[in-house]
Amino acid sequence: MSEQEIRELLTKVKKEEISFEEGVKALKDLPFKDLGFAKIDNHRELRVGYPEIIYCGGKTIEQVREIIKFMLTKENNILATRATEEMYKEVKEFCKDAEYHKEAKIIRIMQKRPQYSDSYIAVVAAGTSDISVCEEAAITAETFGNKVERIYDVGVAGIHRLFDKLDIIRGAKVIIVVAGMEGALASVVGGLVDKPVIAVPTSVGYGANFNGLAALLSMLNSCASGVTVVNIDNGFGAGYSASMINRL
Amino acid sequence: MSEQEIRELLTKVKKEEISFEEGVKALKDLPFKDLGFAKIDNHRELRVGYPEIIYCGGKTIEQVREIIKFMLTKENNILATRATEEMYKEVKEFCKDAEYHKEAKIIRIMQKRPQYSDSYIAVVAAGTSDISVCEEAAITAETFGNKVERIYDVGVAGIHRLFDKLDIIRGAKVIIVVAGMEGALASVVGGLVDKPVIAVPTSVGYGANFNGLAALLSMLNSCASGVTVVNIDNGFGAGYSASMINRL
Amino acid sequence: MSEQEIRELLTKVKKEEISFEEGVKALKDLPFKDLGFAKIDNHRELRVGYPEIIYCGGKTIEQVREIIKFMLTKENNILATRATEEMYKEVKEFCKDAEYHKEAKIIRIMQKRPQYSDSYIAVVAAGTSDISVCEEAAITAETFGNKVERIYDVGVAGIHRLFDKLDIIRGAKVIIVVAGMEGALASVVGGLVDKPVIAVPTSVGYGANFNGLAALLSMLNSCASGVTVVNIDNGFGAGYSASMINRL
Amino acid sequence: MSEQEIRELLTKVKKEEISFEEGVKALKDLPFKDLGFAKIDNHRELRVGYPEIIYCGGKTIEQVREIIKFMLTKENNILATRATEEMYKEVKEFCKDAEYHKEAKIIRIMQKRPQYSDSYIAVVAAGTSDISVCEEAAITAETFGNKVERIYDVGVAGIHRLFDKLDIIRGAKVIIVVAGMEGALASVVGGLVDKPVIAVPTSVGYGANFNGLAALLSMLNSCASGVTVVNIDNGFGAGYSASMINRL
Amino acid sequence: MSEQEIRELLTKVKKEEISFEEGVKALKDLPFKDLGFAKIDNHRELRVGYPEIIYCGGKTIEQVREIIKFMLTKENNILATRATEEMYKEVKEFCKDAEYHKEAKIIRIMQKRPQYSDSYIAVVAAGTSDISVCEEAAITAETFGNKVERIYDVGVAGIHRLFDKLDIIRGAKVIIVVAGMEGALASVVGGLVDKPVIAVPTSVGYGANFNGLAALLSMLNSCASGVTVVNIDNGFGAGYSASMINRL
Amino acid sequence: MSEQEIRELLTKVKKEEISFEEGVKALKDLPFKDLGFAKIDNHRELRVGYPEIIYCGGKTIEQVREIIKFMLTKENNILATRATEEMYKEVKEFCKDAEYHKEAKIIRIMQKRPQYSDSYIAVVAAGTSDISVCEEAAITAETFGNKVERIYDVGVAGIHRLFDKLDIIRGAKVIIVVAGMEGALASVVGGLVDKPVIAVPTSVGYGANFNGLAALLSMLNSCASGVTVVNIDNGFGAGYSASMINRL
Amino acid sequence: MSEQEIRELLTKVKKEEISFEEGVKALKDLPFKDLGFAKIDNHRELRVGYPEIIYCGGKTIEQVREIIKFMLTKENNILATRATEEMYKEVKEFCKDAEYHKEAKIIRIMQKRPQYSDSYIAVVAAGTSDISVCEEAAITAETFGNKVERIYDVGVAGIHRLFDKLDIIRGAKVIIVVAGMEGALASVVGGLVDKPVIAVPTSVGYGANFNGLAALLSMLNSCASGVTVVNIDNGFGAGYSASMINRL
Amino acid sequence: MSEQEIRELLTKVKKEEISFEEGVKALKDLPFKDLGFAKIDNHRELRVGYPEIIYCGGKTIEQVREIIKFMLTKENNILATRATEEMYKEVKEFCKDAEYHKEAKIIRIMQKRPQYSDSYIAVVAAGTSDISVCEEAAITAETFGNKVERIYDVGVAGIHRLFDKLDIIRGAKVIIVVAGMEGALASVVGGLVDKPVIAVPTSVGYGANFNGLAALLSMLNSCASGVTVVNIDNGFGAGYSASMINRL
Repeated sequence: MSEQEIRELLTKVKKEEISFEEGVKALKDLPFKDLGFAKIDNHRELRVGYPEIIYCGGKTIEQVREIIKFMLTKENNILATRATEEMYKEVKEFCKDAEYHKEAKIIRIMQKRPQYSDSYIAVVAAGTSDISVCEEAAITAETFGNKVERIYDVGVAGIHRLFDKLDIIRGAKVIIVVAGMEGALASVVGGLVDKPVIAVPTSVGYGANFNGLAALLSMLNSCASGVTVVNIDNGFGAGYSASMINRL
Repeated sequence: MSEQEIRELLTKVKKEEISFEEGVKALKDLPFKDLGFAKIDNHRELRVGYPEIIYCGGKTIEQVREIIKFMLTKENNILATRATEEMYKEVKEFCKDAEYHKEAKIIRIMQKRPQYSDSYIAVVAAGTSDISVCEEAAITAETFGNKVERIYDVGVAGIHRLFDKLDIIRGAKVIIVVAGMEGALASVVGGLVDKPVIAVPTSVGYGANFNGLAALLSMLNSCASGVTVVNIDNGFGAGYSASMINRL
Repeated sequence: MSEQEIRELLTKVKKEEISFEEGVKALKDLPFKDLGFAKIDNHRELRVGYPEIIYCGGKTIEQVREIIKFMLTKENNILATRATEEMYKEVKEFCKDAEYHKEAKIIRIMQKRPQYSDSYIAVVAAGTSDISVCEEAAITAETFGNKVERIYDVGVAGIHRLFDKLDIIRGAKVIIVVAGMEGALASVVGGLVDKPVIAVPTSVGYGANFNGLAALLSMLNSCASGVTVVNIDNGFGAGYSASMINRL
Repeated sequence: MSEQEIRELLTKVKKEEISFEEGVKALKDLPFKDLGFAKIDNHRELRVGYPEIIYCGGKTIEQVREIIKFMLTKENNILATRATEEMYKEVKEFCKDAEYHKEAKIIRIMQKRPQYSDSYIAVVAAGTSDISVCEEAAITAETFGNKVERIYDVGVAGIHRLFDKLDIIRGAKVIIVVAGMEGALASVVGGLVDKPVIAVPTSVGYGANFNGLAALLSMLNSCASGVTVVNIDNGFGAGYSASMINRL
Repeated sequence: MSEQEIRELLTKVKKEEISFEEGVKALKDLPFKDLGFAKIDNHRELRVGYPEIIYCGGKTIEQVREIIKFMLTKENNILATRATEEMYKEVKEFCKDAEYHKEAKIIRIMQKRPQYSDSYIAVVAAGTSDISVCEEAAITAETFGNKVERIYDVGVAGIHRLFDKLDIIRGAKVIIVVAGMEGALASVVGGLVDKPVIAVPTSVGYGANFNGLAALLSMLNSCASGVTVVNIDNGFGAGYSASMINRL
Repeated sequence: MSEQEIRELLTKVKKEEISFEEGVKALKDLPFKDLGFAKIDNHRELRVGYPEIIYCGGKTIEQVREIIKFMLTKENNILATRATEEMYKEVKEFCKDAEYHKEAKIIRIMQKRPQYSDSYIAVVAAGTSDISVCEEAAITAETFGNKVERIYDVGVAGIHRLFDKLDIIRGAKVIIVVAGMEGALASVVGGLVDKPVIAVPTSVGYGANFNGLAALLSMLNSCASGVTVVNIDNGFGAGYSASMINRL
Repeated sequence: MSEQEIRELLTKVKKEEISFEEGVKALKDLPFKDLGFAKIDNHRELRVGYPEIIYCGGKTIEQVREIIKFMLTKENNILATRATEEMYKEVKEFCKDAEYHKEAKIIRIMQKRPQYSDSYIAVVAAGTSDISVCEEAAITAETFGNKVERIYDVGVAGIHRLFDKLDIIRGAKVIIVVAGMEGALASVVGGLVDKPVIAVPTSVGYGANFNGLAALLSMLNSCASGVTVVNIDNGFGAGYSASMINRL
Repeated sequence: MSEQEIRELLTKVKKEEISFEEGVKALKDLPFKDLGFAKIDNHRELRVGYPEIIYCGGKTIEQVREIIKFMLTKENNILATRATEEMYKEVKEFCKDAEYHKEAKIIRIMQKRPQYSDSYIAVVAAGTSDISVCEEAAITAETFGNKVERIYDVGVAGIHRLFDKLDIIRGAKVIIVVAGMEGALASVVGGLVDKPVIAVPTSVGYGANFNGLAALLSMLNSCASGVTVVNIDNGFGAGYSASMINRL
């Protein structure tokens, strides 16, 4: 609330153009309104289908059920990540619209259809092992109203398959690269495109992989410019950030 | 080169609409042209002032001098990061246009003025200790044709200063958060905005900071969505990625 | 035993104000008495309800049962942390007063009511994931005779909820901040209050969280002064230290 | 600002008991006032001699000089940690009152005498190697108005020297234990007292000490209750936290 | 495709020695052909019995079944590593030729007999604990057409047993050393032979072994020249690399 | 075989004091005999009851059974560490003398009684949590013919209990200190005695204990001289080394 | 020495075909001769120009001078790695043939010309930063009598430059890939060739590179088969192993 | 002080066989006397030449000078480790007897000749790089009155040199093995002897050696029984422990 707005409000109160109670109410909410916390939420609500999010990892079935029940009262779309099939069955009991994306481990409830973007996000991965993280990223991005192109069969060890798909990768507005083991795919893709690349290290591998540390360090040290990184296995985070960029 | 283009080329050669030698030349370059490696470079060149980049870390003064001399022959702008004052003096000898950004440790040679974007990038940091990394990010982004807002006096330990600057931070199209020590600023900013946040951990700190590891892990685990991370002290990488996003 | 006391004792023995045997006995126990080991225990016993403590982690049900049975003979309050529900059932068999705090994983047996402090300890956390560690801290502090205010719904990613509770946090004599993931909450709270803050990193998170390492390093590097740290998931330790400070 | 205060303010504006401009001004500052950021600073200012603090690590002599010059305009006491002798000489040029504590690496400028507490803080260490960290803690605490007892000649390898000093250690309201190598002193002291212990690991040692990591982990895993930990070599942090507790 | 070949092709098209369509086809495939990706595969196919490989770790029984079914259509040999007995039973249902190497955890389907080399690979290990990794290496090498000598009873703690087998070890063309715990066997063997040694650290051990880290670091720091290292427990990788060298 | 012995052997062959075949045989075994590998084994066999050792960790019940059956044919004592109760039952079937030490997880078969030393080994630990490692050390030492004094109730957090037992600890020829958490007990004991101390870190603890790393580093950095360290949880190794020293 | 040889020797002694003293001497050296330690050295000596090797890291100029002086007496070639220019000057004083390879930090003294192999080793790297490690590998391999092809201008971020050199890389018998930062080049090259690849991680980089750890882990986890790894910056080791393979 | 002694003392005071003041004095010192702290020191003093020890690492020349001056007043031998040549020169000024062991970095002042043991300690190392740590161990052991055999030319990569020295190694009562790089020597020696082995990892090496971590982990995981470990580069600690064992 600018000084000008405060002056106008006070003048209105004095001139009784608005009631005393209306003045009190406007001023009472001022601290947070002014700091604009509401801006985010308002901004979010204006988008059709901007979903409520719940991370189910480490939660009990009961907790997930109760949280989703509460969310449903707000009539928004709902995105529940790291959800088990048991959680889905529980939710399906009281919510017909619930759909389960098994590979992504996502329960999704679409109550409003999002407005889809024209541009698309490419999700690139080497093979079938990282599929769960890929799908978490892809479904997240789609739920936020983005078109997604999945390119899952391209690895550094058989790089010609990657080149076959270069046009579709380069056509994207932002690219998510999911890779476990040594994570080299992020650097290779980063060197071939002129778009923001969000790299997701995965915990796929064994031994000196140290649960994804190898891929994480590899990606942070990428020799290709334009690569930023999220937490190990954090498909949701990549999908969310990519959505932000794609919808700019 | 599509099948259609190959058909047309062959037809022209057969009909002698183009000479035999022209046909040979077109086909000889075909592999890389087709894979589109040139696309990137062409794309880059079309932007006015897209700079040549040199990382001076671990290079000798002689190496830097020779590389920059060669780059000058191409008449592009030049951005030399992690450059010492001695390197700058050496370059200044043969290049009047060279400017040295001391805090950013950047030598910059602007031969063409970039077209500046309307939207801007915010570079946010807690204090004076991370200034070198901040300026590396900011100068990089500016050299790539972005407007930059520097907000350097906002730390988590005195959070009201951050709130004073919230409007300018929220007005940015993409936000770079630079933080050493525990890196909490990235999460706090990430929770207050609805824009992509690129977090840069710095090696500022001591003890259990482990040369930036504390801030790096902190940022990778950010509870705020929309935060991606680059390598420790990698101001250039953050500036480059932010530029990509800002110019989408 | 001061020199003066020794002089008086010897004089009494010489003057036969006390018997020879009483003199021998007093001197025989002198080493430990003088070093004052007993002081601690005496001091502890004088407080009403100062509990006996047992850490059940890695113990068998049989071991826990036998230890608690022995403790009951001393008629003190008993606090058993990291206890399973099975342990509780076993204890309940022979001790009607046993109560089980499920979220805290604490078995508590209150045989004497502690004198409660006027000042209170605030236990602050971001959400529901860290609840087990929070409750271990809170129940521990209460058992030691402290009033506790729980503020569990305040996270860095939605910082306005934290500000809503600032008055109650600032009113505490000492504050426990429990946080997993990146642990930024400790720095933010530490910057907003002028009271001792005890930070408890939790193992909540995944990937580059490395079982709480991220939050631990983050808290140790806090840019806010007045923050000290205990072991990952060590709610008991935080509750115990906070109690010491609150009762000073 | 409570709803009641807002009502009164609006009434006053309406009744012209305060001028229109006074009303605007009061409301303009309302957000931060209400959040109470000023509370901290006011609270701090009310204490006599509460010092301004500057961390000189990684700063240039010029930066330190300019910051201290600015601080002097506010007439507070000044505490500059990790300061070199060269910095001190520079400051001494324009500030006669500047004193240099060589072992603590602290420049201190006392413009007002703090009110000293009756209770005292004990700073306990094994020997001469950790002296720099000890003195940083001790001088910090003294500058904040605390009496400090230094007990520097007590190590675990010669534990009888520790017992000689037990009375003075137990007499403190809060105890700082500084230890490098394996950091066992924190556990031993923690087991002998019934007061809050703040443990400071130091980087003193070599090999598998890993720059203080051994002592840090050791202290975090202390088997003695009531021990909290600060960053490696963070004497200032320990002194600050101890001061907070001692002055409760 | 050399310039000369392009000239000849164009000439043939012009002279109609080949049809227009043949010219188009030859040029369409040119990019990849020229880069020679096919060379690898052609090269591989020419060897009798060069197997298809599948890493079963982290795959479901269904995934393994479908992949192997598809592979069988190509009539190559198949090597499935990290396969469980359940996977084997599933495969055995539709493929009579499937054999299960229990210790190696390998399913193998030999449809063509490889041409065996004259020279042999030695697989050296200390005892029975590393047997699974050893056999993965040995079976892999055999499937690729190498003779393998297994020397499994030779450890550093009883070094005379190693000397008894020196002749057979020295007779190999390349030596694989598998070792857990401290991995010293790689250095000892490396010092006794004048052949390439491929060291495989295993995760056998406990405590400060850190799941194979001790053996890995030990082998990377081997004081014996000629030792290269693969990932922890990566018997397949060692067998594959040794096969490459043995068949040079 | 010294030069002198060779001379004598050759002379005897020449003089036909021994047969030609005897000469060949003596020389054929010369390499290993001379290197003295047999010395160790001979030396070992001469001691009454020097046991055969088997580490059961990671072995199957079948493997343990077969190995022990084979060992029994040599009529030595047998010590099987990290053995489960199931393994014991299996062994008991065919070996009446087998005894199971449940806490130590040791199967022991005593076929000959060892000659016991006069001096004794002290095994010192803080409490009940490390009991399994303590007993592995103690039973191992006893099986090798050492007298062992167990002092299990002495921790750093209640140091007076340690002093009560000082005489018995100081009376030992060598002392094993077993400690988890921060491992401070090793330094405290090391400072109180003038005997070799073998420290065994255990994995007891949680969080920043990192499975025994904290105690391991602590012990390696012990400020007390005369402390050497074995692997985490390696009670057997400590018992074996202590036995070597005690029987010198 | 086989049984047959022993029989013959004894017979000769008996028949006095050789003197008694000759018999003693032959038998005295038997242990090592029989174990064949000499085999290695004999084998090595038979190759023309097989060099003596000295690692100068951490040695003083005096030590290097004395060692090389001693080596010169044996008239072999000499390869001194990690040598400073000062060391070279010292050596040049007494050895005219000494040559200094500045980038490789190698002093080389060629007294005999090695027989060069027909096949060659390819040394592949991304740029100029890793040049020192590359040259250490290349000069080492050349000194051992191998032809070497250097391909230093090919990085993952500009992958078309790598493809331009594919033929020369594929023509090698063994390939050394040197890479810092994220080390992705090893996987990319490994996927493009069917030859043994020896990967050398370098310490080039900063931040989360952790002095080469990122590249090391990346290479150990390479998704391309046929890649083995040596220690960080160990150009010598790679050159030595490659030489062994190339000369098989 | 036993109960009997207390009875006798009290009786004497009562009977005035000793004066009142003598009784007070005897009782005043009782606590520590009884705990027997003096026992250690008395025990130490009784040995001829038991030295005073000072660790010079991180101390200034002034501090070292003052400490040694004070020590000289007690007329004991003095052992100053990690001492620079400058420190030695300073000490030599006021102490003619000071001798400097350059490789060991030890200043030694022998005022009394120790009684030498009959048995000896073997110090075994691979080469010249670890010489400083070896000599620190050897000189320490000698100063404590032990005979020492140095065997410095035996490495795992040329294991026959080790066998040449086996007799002298096996003749020792206790063996110190010093090794950097991968530390395999400890396991090899441990497997060849039946005596206590104290392993000292050194920081010699580079890259994945991580300043001695590789050797440390290797030694802790030694497959040979009877090996205990001290801190990286801790030659003094090894020498001290070996002395304790040798003099039992």
